[in-house]
Amino acid sequence: MGSIAFDTIHAPSGTAECVLGGSVNFFSVAASLFSPVQVVGVVGEDYPKKHLEYLASRSIDINGISVQKGKTFHWRGSYEKNLNEAETLSTCLNVFENFNPVLSEEQAAAEYVFLANIDPVLQLRVLDQVKNPRLVACDTMNFWIRGKREELLRTLKRVDVLCVNEGEAYLLADQGSGARSITQAAEVIRKMGPKILVIKRGEYGANLYTDAGIFVAPAHPVRTVIDPTGAGDSFAGAFMGYLAKAGADRKMADEDLPQWDSLLRNAVVTGCVLSSFTVEDFSLHRLMKLEYAELMERRKAHIAMMAI
Amino acid sequence: MGSIAFDTIHAPSGTAECVLGGSVNFFSVAASLFSPVQVVGVVGEDYPKKHLEYLASRSIDINGISVQKGKTFHWRGSYEKNLNEAETLSTCLNVFENFNPVLSEEQAAAEYVFLANIDPVLQLRVLDQVKNPRLVACDTMNFWIRGKREELLRTLKRVDVLCVNEGEAYLLADQGSGARSITQAAEVIRKMGPKILVIKRGEYGANLYTDAGIFVAPAHPVRTVIDPTGAGDSFAGAFMGYLAKAGADRKMADEDLPQWDSLLRNAVVTGCVLSSFTVEDFSLHRLMKLEYAELMERRKAHIAMMAI
Repeated sequence: MGSIAFDTIHAPSGTAECVLGGSVNFFSVAASLFSPVQVVGVVGEDYPKKHLEYLASRSIDINGISVQKGKTFHWRGSYEKNLNEAETLSTCLNVFENFNPVLSEEQAAAEYVFLANIDPVLQLRVLDQVKNPRLVACDTMNFWIRGKREELLRTLKRVDVLCVNEGEAYLLADQGSGARSITQAAEVIRKMGPKILVIKRGEYGANLYTDAGIFVAPAHPVRTVIDPTGAGDSFAGAFMGYLAKAGADRKMADEDLPQWDSLLRNAVVTGCVLSSFTVEDFSLHRLMKLEYAELMERRKAHIAMMAI
Repeated sequence: MGSIAFDTIHAPSGTAECVLGGSVNFFSVAASLFSPVQVVGVVGEDYPKKHLEYLASRSIDINGISVQKGKTFHWRGSYEKNLNEAETLSTCLNVFENFNPVLSEEQAAAEYVFLANIDPVLQLRVLDQVKNPRLVACDTMNFWIRGKREELLRTLKRVDVLCVNEGEAYLLADQGSGARSITQAAEVIRKMGPKILVIKRGEYGANLYTDAGIFVAPAHPVRTVIDPTGAGDSFAGAFMGYLAKAGADRKMADEDLPQWDSLLRNAVVTGCVLSSFTVEDFSLHRLMKLEYAELMERRKAHIAMMAI
């Protein structure tokens, strides 16, 4: 569940006007390489039907995308100062403003649930509807960490996994904790609820924190980053898709941690490798062409790059 | 061969006035955990004799440290804006200004040679004196990359390994190359001479580039970084010490690369682990207490943190 958007992107590599974006798109295209996906989101009447058909062609159930009167959410962002962090230039919520996710019975039965970065009140509303999930993960951003901290903390109490980037982790941990290293920030955040914490570090990779310890995965080296938009959402898609496919076959319990830890490490690596494709072009251009075998080939090279 | 200094450090954790520093100190204390070390440097009459005796007590040959009339080199730096990169506040070269390394016969026979960050003209002068080294590594910094580029390029043609940090790598690669990723920068630098390139990325670890490919080592998580000074030099000390100990027993040749690649990966990991101790306290305080068994224990935990 998340946003579907038109993005206008300014990057050192150039500008892309009004291209397809939003967490639902990046997440679902990535996750669909591993597992069937159901998506929940909203678009306006201006959203291309052809793209919804494309999603449907890849084992993505689009029944949860409601088409409403008005325009699709439009985000304008810039990476001209820093390729590792987007600067929001403008946000036109449009139909997204009144988004109220109502899940069908089939959606409510989902076993692996990802709450993309939206208002934590809506994230909670989805959690109230899902029946008996095996694993719930969520993302968030500075806007909610600053503006809806209490609501966000309620969401965090109910999720298994939090995926945030480094700046968000510091901001979330910092209120009064004085966390001065990412290790300290991770300790503070894990006490807020999520037993599994993934901190995404852009071109430096991602760290995984669980009761079993820390795992540090490098990013896959990319010769030229064209557009970092969607790297985090497609990371999450591969991460959740990988876990769903690997099919841990019951609710996470403490005694399963060694098994979970290995799965989670593999899921993080898969996320890092997948997002290295995402950033090779604007929008979903590279991701839509990506095939499973190609992903697995790069994953193999990636694991060789980590081996000692 | 490098500098011996008094440092005055300003960091978020506090200030340390006139403490022991300089690349020779950090490098040699780290390297001496693995291998005998000969050092070449210069101090003033104000340098504590007791500390020279300490170095001598750890299989560090201090015959190459000349004591000259005047004051020891004094560096003042600040990490208040960025823990990953020092800002130089002032540099008093003092006796270091007229440093002219002259090697004894024993020093000239060294098999593993590290040219720490000093004037590339002096680095070349040392290279002209060493007889038949198995492996030569060097470091440099922005000051020489900008101010003595031609001389530095001559040094780089004659070294096997270059160890630089990320900012230095971009600066070195950038003149006209337009390198926009660390991967591109590494390609450009390796064409300048060093077949083996180590790019240090502070709290993100270090990348190794060889003909065999890329290896990415994470930094060891440190809960509270007190003082990053010397992290790079002690990294290099552990890296070279590890290689000397592992004792590749002949000159590097292309056909040995697979064997070298594994040794180099292990040396990089050892450097990352060692420097995680260095930054836990000001100056050499933590490093001087560090024992081999303690280092190896953290190294074991570190490798578990990288395992998939």
